Order: sequence, then C-alpha cells, then structure tokens
Amino acid sequence: MVTGTATFQDQLTELAHVLDDGDKQRFGDIVSRAQPYDLARMLVELTADRQLKFIAMLPPPRAMEILEYTDPELQYYVLDHLDEQRTAQLLNEMSSDKVVDLLLALHPHQASRLMDYLPRDYRETISKLMDFEPETAGSLATVDYIAARHLWTVEQTLEHVRKVGRDAEIVSYIYVLDMQGKLMGVVSLKETILAEPGTLLAHMIREEVISVPADMHQQKVADLLAKYDLVAIPVVAHDNYLIGIITVDDLIDVIHEEATEDIHKLGGSQPLEDPYFKNSVWGLFRKRIGWLLILFVAEAYTGNVLRYYESTLSEAIALSFFIPLLIGTGGNAGTQTVTTLVRAMAVGEVKFSDIMKVLRKELSTGVVIGACMGLVAFVRAELLGVGVQVGNVVAITAVFIVIWASIVSAILPLILHKLKVDPAVVSGPFIATLVDGTGLIIYFTMAEIMLDL
Amino acid sequence: MVTGTATFQDQLTELAHVLDDGDKQRFGDIVSRAQPYDLARMLVELTADRQLKFIAMLPPPRAMEILEYTDPELQYYVLDHLDEQRTAQLLNEMSSDKVVDLLLALHPHQASRLMDYLPRDYRETISKLMDFEPETAGSLATVDYIAARHLWTVEQTLEHVRKVGRDAEIVSYIYVLDMQGKLMGVVSLKETILAEPGTLLAHMIREEVISVPADMHQQKVADLLAKYDLVAIPVVAHDNYLIGIITVDDLIDVIHEEATEDIHKLGGSQPLEDPYFKNSVWGLFRKRIGWLLILFVAEAYTGNVLRYYESTLSEAIALSFFIPLLIGTGGNAGTQTVTTLVRAMAVGEVKFSDIMKVLRKELSTGVVIGACMGLVAFVRAELLGVGVQVGNVVAITAVFIVIWASIVSAILPLILHKLKVDPAVVSGPFIATLVDGTGLIIYFTMAEIMLDL
Repeated sequence: MVTGTATFQDQLTELAHVLDDGDKQRFGDIVSRAQPYDLARMLVELTADRQLKFIAMLPPPRAMEILEYTDPELQYYVLDHLDEQRTAQLLNEMSSDKVVDLLLALHPHQASRLMDYLPRDYRETISKLMDFEPETAGSLATVDYIAARHLWTVEQTLEHVRKVGRDAEIVSYIYVLDMQGKLMGVVSLKETILAEPGTLLAHMIREEVISVPADMHQQKVADLLAKYDLVAIPVVAHDNYLIGIITVDDLIDVIHEEATEDIHKLGGSQPLEDPYFKNSVWGLFRKRIGWLLILFVAEAYTGNVLRYYESTLSEAIALSFFIPLLIGTGGNAGTQTVTTLVRAMAVGEVKFSDIMKVLRKELSTGVVIGACMGLVAFVRAELLGVGVQVGNVVAITAVFIVIWASIVSAILPLILHKLKVDPAVVSGPFIATLVDGTGLIIYFTMAEIMLDL
Repeated sequence: MVTGTATFQDQLTELAHVLDDGDKQRFGDIVSRAQPYDLARMLVELTADRQLKFIAMLPPPRAMEILEYTDPELQYYVLDHLDEQRTAQLLNEMSSDKVVDLLLALHPHQASRLMDYLPRDYRETISKLMDFEPETAGSLATVDYIAARHLWTVEQTLEHVRKVGRDAEIVSYIYVLDMQGKLMGVVSLKETILAEPGTLLAHMIREEVISVPADMHQQKVADLLAKYDLVAIPVVAHDNYLIGIITVDDLIDVIHEEATEDIHKLGGSQPLEDPYFKNSVWGLFRKRIGWLLILFVAEAYTGNVLRYYESTLSEAIALSFFIPLLIGTGGNAGTQTVTTLVRAMAVGEVKFSDIMKVLRKELSTGVVIGACMGLVAFVRAELLGVGVQVGNVVAITAVFIVIWASIVSAILPLILHKLKVDPAVVSGPFIATLVDGTGLIIYFTMAEIMLDL
C-alpha cells in the first residue's frame, strides 16, 4: 500500500519521540514499516542531533539507503559528525555514483577528508569517476555492478553473485569481461538461473550489448535506454574497457531534468538547474533577464514600423484598435506550431531532412486556420463598428499573419537544429516577437492598398 | 557497442536479399547481431511479403520481442497472415499488456478473431485487463510476473522461477501471494539467491510494498516509480488482489507522453496523442483552432480598450508606437513565470499551500526585472525621439506591466490546480492574452495622469 494512513506530521512526531526515548524496539518498527524514500523525507525534517541519532541507530546498509535520498549538505553533516568507524562503514555502503555526487558538491578540503575513509584502490576509482564532465554518461556511472569472466560456469557465477550481490546496485545483468577488463558481453541473471549449472558463460553471452562511451551526453543515454527498454546501460572507455554502469533510476531523473530544461527554454528563459524554491530572487532574475532583454530589443523595431506608418495611422486611427489582436493571433498560432515541433524533435520524431514534409503540413494547416481566423476577425471588426472597409483589411491581414507565423515557426526550429543550436531556444516568446513586427508590416501594407491611403 | 558501423540502409538491403534467398545461415547472423528494437525498425521498412517471411523464419519468442516494438496495424497484419499454429504461438509469447494494446486498437471483429487463439482462462484475464480506462494503472498492467506463496522455501521458489521465468517480463521481484491471491509482500530475486535454500519466504518478505490501485492515473504511477526508484510496481484491486504489474519501460513511455502533453498545452494547443507525422492537417487544425478562438475572443477586448482611449491616442499618436513593445514584454515575463511554475507543479516541487511563498518570490523577482525593463524602455523611447514625457510614461508602464504579469502568472496556475483544472492550460499564449488588455489599461491610465490628457 502507498503509505498514508497516519499523516506525515504524526509519523514525524512519533519518530522524534522514539529517538528522544532511545526506544530501539519502536524505532525498529517504524523503519521496517516505511520506505527509504519516506524515511528520508522525515530525516530532513528532524533536528540536527536527532538526525545523527537516527542514522547511528540503523544498520549501515539501511542508513545509506535512506541517506542517498538526501542532499549532499545533509550527507556531509551526518558523515562528519559520526564516529570514524561508522563514517567509514557508511561511505563504503554508498553507491559509487552517489559518492561522486557528494564529493563534487563539497569543498575540496571536505572532499579529501571524506576520501581518506575509502580504501586506496576504491579511492582511485572514485577520483577517475569525478573527472567526467557533468551531464555525460561517465558522470552518472556507478561501479557497483556484477562482473564475471567468460570462462566461468553458471554455478561459479551464481556463487560470485551470492558473494558480491549485496553491494550491487542492480543484479538483473551480469557483465562479462575478458582478462583485460574489456566488456565482452552480458548475461542476464534470469538466463543464468534458468541455465544448467555447468554451462560456460561464454556459451550464453550476448555480445551485441548496447553500451555508451563515457563522454556521451546524458540525454542521448536516456534516449537509448528508453528505446531499447533496458534497466541499466554499461559505460565504456576507448577499446571497450568497462568503466561502470548507469541504472534506470538515474536515467529517469535525467529524463525529467531534460524535459524541464526544454519547458523552461520554450517559456523563454534559461533553464533552472535546481528545484524552484532553491532559486533565489537574484537567481531567477539572472535566468530570465537575458532573454527578456534580447526579446525587448527584437521587439523594439515594432516602434520603428509604427512610426513609419504614422500618417496612415492618424488618418485611420481605428486601425490601431486591432494591433494587439492581430499580432497576438499571429504569436499564438506560431507558438502552437513551434512547441509541437520542438518537442517532436526532442523525442526524435522529426529530423532536418523532414523539412519539406513539415513545411507542407504546417502551411496547409496554416491556410485552413488562417481562413477561419480571418472570418472571425471580420465579425469582430463589424461588432466594433469600424466599417466594412477596415473590417476587410483586418480579416485579410489575419489570414496572412497566421500563414506567415506557420511558415516561420515550421522552418526556424529545424534550421537551428541543423546549425547545432538547441531548437528549444525558439521559444513561444521568440516566435511571437518575430511575428509581431512582420505582422504589422503585413497589416499596414494591406491597409494602404485596400484603403487607398 | 551502439550499432552503427554499417548504415541502416545497407543493413536493410542485406536483410531483403537474405530473405529473398531464404538463406537461413546469414539470416541467423543478422538477427543475432542486432537488437530487437533495431530489427523492428528494419521490419517496418520491408515489403509485406518479406515482413511475413522475416517473422516466420524466427523462433516465436524472438519474433515477438521484435514485433512488440511495432504498431498494432503491422502486428495484426502479420498475425492474420501466418498459419494458425504460428499465430497462436506468437500471441501466447506476447506480453499481456501488449496483447491488450493490440486488441484495443483493432476492430472488435478482428480482436475477437485473435482472441480465439488464446487459451480460455488467459482470454478471460485479457478481457478483464481490456476493461480498464486508458491512462490508468490497470491499462498498463501485465500479468507476466512471478508469483510465489509465503510458505514456500527459497529452494522451491527458485525452482518455480526456473519453470516460469522465461515468460516473465521482469524477474527482479517475486510477488508473494496468500491463498486467495491477495498480495502479501515482495521478495527480490537478489535476496532469494543470497538466502539459504531452506529459508521460508514468509521470513524474508517485505510487507510494505508500494502498490497502486487499478484506477490510479498513469502519471501518478510514474511519479511513484521515480520517487521510490522501482523497476516494477504491482497493481491491485480492492482488498489487495494482485491484478498485474507495471514495468519501468512502460512507465518511461508514460513520462515522455506526459511531458509532451504538458509542453503542447503550454504552447496553447490541445495535446497531440500520436507522433507528429501521424496527424493529418485536419487533425492538427482541430487540436489548435479551439484555443486560438478562445484566445482571439479574450484578446478582442483590447479593441474595446483602445477605442475607449481613442481621443488620448489621437492626441498623442506616439503612444501607439509602444503598444506592441509594452504588451509583448508583459507577455514574455508572464510566460517565463508560468512555464517555470507549471513544470514545478507537474514534478511536485510546488503545491497550492506554497502560494504565498511563490507570490513573494515572483513579486520580488518581478520588481527587479520590472525596474530593469523600465530603464531600457526609457532609453528606447528616447532613441525613437518621442520626447521625455512620453518616455517617462513608457518606462513607468514597463515597470508596472512586468510586476502585474508576474503576479497574475504566479497565482493563476496555483489556483487552477486547486480547482482541479490542469494548470498547464495557463499556457504562455493564455497569460500573454490576459496581460495584453490589462497592460493597455495600465498604459493609458499612466498616460492620462502623466501627460495631463
């Protein structure tokens, strides 16, 4: 069942009491009943001394399972305040990708103090993992996988799994290495259990493993995992040396992060890297002001367009009533197209080579939508009582603005992608800005022709 | 390695040749070298008769692994054209959630024809699964899980896994049921392998399983899976009867779908359900026209606002030059805030109870950004040579419009969420429209006061 009969606050209060009393029996009850994730949510709400008590009262593997769901800040606080032996135990229980995340988040002095608790060769492995660029496959890799050799039998392999399995993040796959540590292939635990005990791994191995180089961008890794329905993906260096594996739970976080990034960009701001409330006012300001200024400058030419048509405007002031409506409609139509296409490109449905197909589809849709909007625009102009002549100008302009917006927003993201610019920078606000000025030119040209001004 | 030395087109041509020659040896080489997903991509490109040959030449489990990556259309075509025995074999190899997806996509006559190939009690299970609403947990469930009883020993359980494991979608968890089929808890395959053979499951079972009711929305299920780092989640009916399990690969698809839906909504259109190119012009039109019309009607009141200020406007025609710039800036600032907040709510970072915290943060950010934009707006007005007085009006208006846009777009998505309306309907275009009319009122009120009109 999803935990939820007692409220979170009640559970928290109970936990605080139990910790103060040092009642091991009731403490054991609480932690065995709850999920690590939920215990972590309680842990962060406790006072500092209760946090230490909480972690100290748990067996190290369970303590680390919970601690891994919290911030590096809290992790460091706890590790720094427990006795040395316990800190060493906990750190060695932590999965290696989480150790890397923790150490990278700390001040180098703090990081090297924690490093001292690790055995020498593990320390070297961690140092290497820390060198990978953020957002690459290497930075997400953990070394807590199960490796076997191709000349082992199924029985030997299962024996090995029993010995090292407790520390592994995932046991669904066993990675088969040659004598140099190069990845030869993979066998699944399922297949191993189903096989005869005497079978050699070499006879069961699947050599066509999907693996990724350490410098591949995390979004690409997530795409591969989703496409091929994997629960883990090995990361290799040149010559197929196995560096580590990335597990599906970390890649789900990546999928969320990347979607958030795209959404923020499409909304016309720099993506926030931290959860919303972790951003200060100053932080939000910095993420937003850049694009606002760029868009402001781009939009500023509408002023020149309007000044250019100043005499037309003063002769028929009624034309000005429809400026926001017409450019707004163009912006809306463009935003619809651009968000659809940028997302379609992000999930790999649309590529640059599809540009003519996209243009044809969007142009046709734009014509139908434009015709529709032209009709409504005419009705609206009549309702405002500006006369049939101005009504005609407004209607015709609506048709052309929608078509124009469709064309621009169909082509632009594809071209940017081709130029290796993230198409998500063509946000709704960007397209709206672009269509505003050009829309005004369409509007006044129509007016001058049709009203004979 | 990621497949990719030979190009896709080359591989496809080779495959076509091999199929025409009926060369079993080379065919075996090709399919053993490639991933099911990649083979599926080739399969859909083949001619109809080659598609049948391809499937007929493979052992049924492998054939189904590949076929599951294709559309129901192709699946039906293949199943309908093979000999009956083969069709029955294939259908029984297909995982139950995919059988349900296929049958639901077909005409009832076609579906019932395929149903006849299934054994009677499996047919009943499938019928029940087909009754769940789309986008609910029940609709994603598969019955291909491993179940054990709590009085079994580890040895008996592993024996059972060996017997039924080949058909299971996932073997990482073994679901422990009581005599009535109610879910008592779970043991992981890893724990089972690590345990002594004589241990009873009852002693190892984790009773606090995260499970979901069959009518839970798929997005919520995906959220739980991501939070708790699971690779599968059991679906239960009332009284904890186990209906099936949902595996992580299906939930990754859900996460993608839900992000796409939100992005489309934020772009101001109804979400597309199918991949971009599967939508006809008419289909795109229908998804877009509704919101465009609503926004048009909402935007239309800007016409009334401007007509109301007609005399002010004709006295100082220079005011009109800044209309697109000012309302555009308000719309951009609002779009930034709204997309950030809608996403933060979708991933659970912001709740309605945070409304005051959000308002405070957005208001402060809005004041800083507004001050900045006011300054640039003044400079811009001077550059256009409209005089200091109009320049002052434009600058002050810019400040207030940005602040106003921040307030509206901070509050609105939270209130809608509280009213159980999806906050993603407050799209960028929606906020821009809302800010346009109110922005004009701010502008002309300022003008009348400051210019003494």
